[in-house]
Amino acid sequence: MRVLGIDPGLTRCGLGVVEGAAGRPLRLVAVDVVRTPPGDDIGARLLAIERAVEAWLREHQPDAVAVERVFSQHNVRTVMGTAQASAVAITCAARAGLPVALHTPSEMKAAVTGSGRADKAQVGAMVTRILRLDAPPKPADAADALGLAICHVWRGAATARIAAAVALAGAGR
Amino acid sequence: MRVLGIDPGLTRCGLGVVEGAAGRPLRLVAVDVVRTPPGDDIGARLLAIERAVEAWLREHQPDAVAVERVFSQHNVRTVMGTAQASAVAITCAARAGLPVALHTPSEMKAAVTGSGRADKAQVGAMVTRILRLDAPPKPADAADALGLAICHVWRGAATARIAAAVALAGAGR
Repeated sequence: MRVLGIDPGLTRCGLGVVEGAAGRPLRLVAVDVVRTPPGDDIGARLLAIERAVEAWLREHQPDAVAVERVFSQHNVRTVMGTAQASAVAITCAARAGLPVALHTPSEMKAAVTGSGRADKAQVGAMVTRILRLDAPPKPADAADALGLAICHVWRGAATARIAAAVALAGAGR
Repeated sequence: MRVLGIDPGLTRCGLGVVEGAAGRPLRLVAVDVVRTPPGDDIGARLLAIERAVEAWLREHQPDAVAVERVFSQHNVRTVMGTAQASAVAITCAARAGLPVALHTPSEMKAAVTGSGRADKAQVGAMVTRILRLDAPPKPADAADALGLAICHVWRGAATARIAAAVALAGAGR
């Protein structure tokens, strides 16, 4: 399965594509950060993010998109931009008919490091190890996007296993 | 000038088109509220809003789009959805090459009622009077969308007058 992870943001929006399956080594397909100038008007910034996400969907043909779930408890000054960038990413995925999953930062951190409270360096180190990279992806938004994609591959597999077990139990009744 | 006003929201998104110029009577072109079911996934909801906004842009061919500026001080439970719906509306307008203006709720209320702290009923009553309607548009989101469009026509004219006066003063020097 191929997953596009998106760490939404107006100033920096992380995009990372990972391919693989739970229990087998994962592979980095692509990673980048889209930047839009804070001085530009909001329409131009959101449009630039939309075009980048659409280009990635076209080029990398993911099976699913994993976007960070935005919480309003975060920094009030940045949360609106994050919510707006996430809306554009989610709409692009929905328009392409792809399943969209939202994972919280804690879920992503717990998936890749084992702790929901891991710091940026720890996430970067584990993403580097899991994908067998030479160095941690920079900036942190790039590593976070890959972490979301990894989290999705692994959580998706767990969800599928549970569904299969439930179905089996149902069939045995 | 023809303006599409948008009062963004996931559950109810107000859309209102007004035509006219400052100092001349304004005319209601269309008003409606797009609703998306709270039980649907966020991708489907944002896509439904995108499709509605695109249909309105195509059908009513506005010269500008006025969207309510979202503040994070609002109700934390609804602000994320409002920010996401506004992002979709702004992106649709930018994609169509239309100017997008953001007006705060206070600016809209001050424009149509004379007070930035007017309540919903007062906004509804003044929108009804300004557009010479038989009854206030319902629900409040519809009246707010029209209020944003009216606000934009009037503020735009004021901005243009100031720019013209500045240009004249410069020419007289």
